[in-house]
Amino acid sequence: MNSANSDLIDFKIRHSWHRISRMYNQKAASEQMTMSYGFILMFIERKGTPSTQLGPKMGMEATSLSRTINAMEKDGLLIREVSKNDKRITLVYLTEKGVEKRKLVKKFILDFNERINLKIKKKDLEGFYKVMNVVDDLVDDILEENKLINEKV
Amino acid sequence: MNSANSDLIDFKIRHSWHRISRMYNQKAASEQMTMSYGFILMFIERKGTPSTQLGPKMGMEATSLSRTINAMEKDGLLIREVSKNDKRITLVYLTEKGVEKRKLVKKFILDFNERINLKIKKKDLEGFYKVMNVVDDLVDDILEENKLINEKV
Repeated sequence: MNSANSDLIDFKIRHSWHRISRMYNQKAASEQMTMSYGFILMFIERKGTPSTQLGPKMGMEATSLSRTINAMEKDGLLIREVSKNDKRITLVYLTEKGVEKRKLVKKFILDFNERINLKIKKKDLEGFYKVMNVVDDLVDDILEENKLINEKV
Repeated sequence: MNSANSDLIDFKIRHSWHRISRMYNQKAASEQMTMSYGFILMFIERKGTPSTQLGPKMGMEATSLSRTINAMEKDGLLIREVSKNDKRITLVYLTEKGVEKRKLVKKFILDFNERINLKIKKKDLEGFYKVMNVVDDLVDDILEENKLINEKV
């Protein structure tokens, strides 16, 4: 199976994501950040984002997310404030420095995606999205099947 | 940018890999394994694989790889032996139990890929691979560009 691994759709996706995250981490390091910093910057909204919403949005574990947010607060990229409307909610806001870094991150992400788009035909991109959507739907089905099996056991 | 994140090619790949790895981890847990166990089982060859080759093949960090290999040896899935031809090399072999688990993993991976393939058209799959190859090549270019910039600084 070894030689054929790279032909498998999921191995291709895994390999690609590993390479992309390596690239993002390399770029982030040159700005004294990590890839996770970049993603968090992108997901925080101007009106403040409840800290509990960041994890599910980003698919990050709670402990690793809260460690990263602490580090980012220490680095002056964001602040946390209890919501005026609901004292149970902590909102995360970007500082001025955070907004600056967010611009850099956004530019890098958009440039990267634009460079890809320049090199591919529309019909290939449509094929890509169709395959990715089939994969997503199938993964959802299998997660649901396994949940049902586990509940029976 | 938030609402548009999911249209970005790299965000789509990231999201997809997160979902796939969740599925694999769920399945692996039902066999008292982790996804990393499964990948390592798939990458070990019958004639023995040098332990130092596993990391680069799998894109796993050395420390996390060696921790996982230790755990797998303790669980009786593999053994390590110094190579008879070169005493500096440690070879990793699957045990009988390891071979059995490998069959399960292989079946799960191939079934998953077959179920995807049944749902997509050949031309869409071609588009998918074209896009993934463009992404891979561009990531390589950017990693190289950044390396040159960092060397200059």
